[in-house]
Amino acid sequence: MSHSPLPSSLVDRQRLADRIDQLAQYGAYSPGGVDRQALTPEDAVAQNRLLDWAEQIGLTAQTDDIGNLFLRLPGSDPDALPVMAGSHIDTQPTGGRYDGAYGVLAALEAVQAIAQSGIAHRHPIDVVAWMNEEGSRFAPGMTGSAVHAGARDLQEALDTTDAQGVSIAQALAQVRAAMPALPRRPLRSRIAAYIEPHIEQGIRLEQAGCSVGVVTTMQGKITCRVTVTGEAAHAGTSTRAQRKDALLSAIACVQALTGAFHDADDIVRLTVGRFSVSPNAPSVVPASVVFSIDLRFPDTTQLRSMGDRIRPLCEAACAPCTVQVEELSYAPSLDFSADIQNLLRQTAQALDIAHMDLASSAGHDSRYASELGPAGMLFIPCRDGITHHDAEFASEDDMYDGARVLADALAALAR
Amino acid sequence: MSHSPLPSSLVDRQRLADRIDQLAQYGAYSPGGVDRQALTPEDAVAQNRLLDWAEQIGLTAQTDDIGNLFLRLPGSDPDALPVMAGSHIDTQPTGGRYDGAYGVLAALEAVQAIAQSGIAHRHPIDVVAWMNEEGSRFAPGMTGSAVHAGARDLQEALDTTDAQGVSIAQALAQVRAAMPALPRRPLRSRIAAYIEPHIEQGIRLEQAGCSVGVVTTMQGKITCRVTVTGEAAHAGTSTRAQRKDALLSAIACVQALTGAFHDADDIVRLTVGRFSVSPNAPSVVPASVVFSIDLRFPDTTQLRSMGDRIRPLCEAACAPCTVQVEELSYAPSLDFSADIQNLLRQTAQALDIAHMDLASSAGHDSRYASELGPAGMLFIPCRDGITHHDAEFASEDDMYDGARVLADALAALAR
Repeated sequence: MSHSPLPSSLVDRQRLADRIDQLAQYGAYSPGGVDRQALTPEDAVAQNRLLDWAEQIGLTAQTDDIGNLFLRLPGSDPDALPVMAGSHIDTQPTGGRYDGAYGVLAALEAVQAIAQSGIAHRHPIDVVAWMNEEGSRFAPGMTGSAVHAGARDLQEALDTTDAQGVSIAQALAQVRAAMPALPRRPLRSRIAAYIEPHIEQGIRLEQAGCSVGVVTTMQGKITCRVTVTGEAAHAGTSTRAQRKDALLSAIACVQALTGAFHDADDIVRLTVGRFSVSPNAPSVVPASVVFSIDLRFPDTTQLRSMGDRIRPLCEAACAPCTVQVEELSYAPSLDFSADIQNLLRQTAQALDIAHMDLASSAGHDSRYASELGPAGMLFIPCRDGITHHDAEFASEDDMYDGARVLADALAALAR
Repeated sequence: MSHSPLPSSLVDRQRLADRIDQLAQYGAYSPGGVDRQALTPEDAVAQNRLLDWAEQIGLTAQTDDIGNLFLRLPGSDPDALPVMAGSHIDTQPTGGRYDGAYGVLAALEAVQAIAQSGIAHRHPIDVVAWMNEEGSRFAPGMTGSAVHAGARDLQEALDTTDAQGVSIAQALAQVRAAMPALPRRPLRSRIAAYIEPHIEQGIRLEQAGCSVGVVTTMQGKITCRVTVTGEAAHAGTSTRAQRKDALLSAIACVQALTGAFHDADDIVRLTVGRFSVSPNAPSVVPASVVFSIDLRFPDTTQLRSMGDRIRPLCEAACAPCTVQVEELSYAPSLDFSADIQNLLRQTAQALDIAHMDLASSAGHDSRYASELGPAGMLFIPCRDGITHHDAEFASEDDMYDGARVLADALAALAR
């Protein structure tokens, strides 16, 4: 039995809170809000700050070909696969200071506590900051984790451009120029385990009075693009019977979908977030509408079944227009490692921290990290479930509890 | 009794058709389509072509402070108010070659026939091309006729900018630089009578087998801007119960309106042509929607009553979002001069041209010209009612019949 103190006892509540405050300076657009999109100058400054902290702790830094940042606490066996924890530090344009940043800084705090504890561990422990999780500058998101895991082609990702036509390759070169040169870790490097701490972005932990959530699954997601084609016509002269109004047909499609997928339990997440009308002129009957569907559900079979109904539902509703439904992506539900779930539960139990199991409604880098090794997630509450907003808030107590569970769990995994 | 031939007998079918073809060259985007928006270089070239034809006929040209073009055949009494006919030569970006241009060129043909006939007339006869009827470059449309009639402030109109920030004043200066200097007619110059020939932009004449329509009324129109305000939320984590989805609430508003104004006779014209969603991102629940309402109906009382129901209907439908309804414009129905209607009917009858009475569903410059003196309109069929499209088509026979009625009617008014 080790004589070292438990790492959780060395987690520093104030140090973690201070780092959250400091990182939030880079890209601050309001007292609480952070706009730090991937590979911007603000992102480069924030990454440099992570490197400073890593150096103070004695971690060694690496990057990879897609710009993920790895900060390593060596273990006793240099050949052992790393135990990894982290998340991302990019934000939505109207983001807060906790989404992503908490996961990286809780991992940094846990690793610092482990280092200070002097506890023996065979595996190296890596803090990771995945590149472009949010996808707000370069769509789609989770670029760094997807490319690192091999789920997305490196070159295709590097060629992705933002709204100004700047590619990830170009922006990444600028960020690298603003940072010290770092050794490159090969893509698809296997890991011994991965834990991602994150704010819940929901209200279940808050309502249950738990400071830690053990994430069991990540709900699946289907995205589609629907194009409704009608015919432009004169608003004054064309009769209702003559019109092929793409707006009215698109509305009928949306209503058919919301009606068909309406569940009393309110578990289905159906969102039409994009809805673009053409020619979008007040006196012209709309000729076409393109709208997006974002459909999420925890059970893969039911999700797939709902996804398969989208096309027939739209086709039945779109008269007198025509409709085209393209499925853009399909991610089945993901079950996190039972071992990591158990470890997180037992660790929270041992520390007497109120915890519960819950599913993740949002997507996270852990989806792709799970392809590199056993993965899990640890949620902490965020007030009123508000996220992607400058009112996003997590309490110091909850952040502290999450980091303590993480510290002991990582130490156990790395032992 | 005059020994001159009737002007209608001198209307030249081929000359009119040729001029339609020639004018359609300026801004042609396809074999049938014309994109000649107001005060563009194409518009300047087309106006110069009108000046050439006017000179050949012996007409004198004038303009005014808002860029309308007047081509005058003098009468025997220089102090008599002019009898006026015409329309506009600007088009929609996806316009055809008849909407507007037919009215100007039929008037030119009628005036040429009157001149050739040698028939005596006291009043001058003016061909007019009103500036920016379509409003596709500078919204709203009917700028030239509205400003000339005093219904719209000159300076406010001159300051109106297009999507590139170019003002009407700037664009007008460029067009003037490309044309000979013309004397200026004062705004609000009264007229003895006005007749506007135009394609019907509907199918009633075609269905009835008539080549001429005597327009009795122009239906009234109400336009509104509706703003639905909800709350952005995460597509994965926010429950249906938590959401304030502005798209779904806007859809409910549109459906409440289409339901309430649904008439079995299909006379009501309700169009939601603009519908803009914000932030319009696939994974974000829409925070707001701004949509337009274009509502038209021939009976003023019923139109006003429908207009007054828009706000309460939207307010009742918009939960859980909030809604703001702004009425942007209200034009009551317009009854055209009974004398001019009678004259057109009698003239068509005398020429044995199949004709019928009908209402105008679209708005035209005659709305404002009617404020300067007695006004009327003469419609000719357009195939399948297609307009604002490169398939827009009027037959040479119908164009000829319309111009013949116009020629004799103008001669009678000018006598």
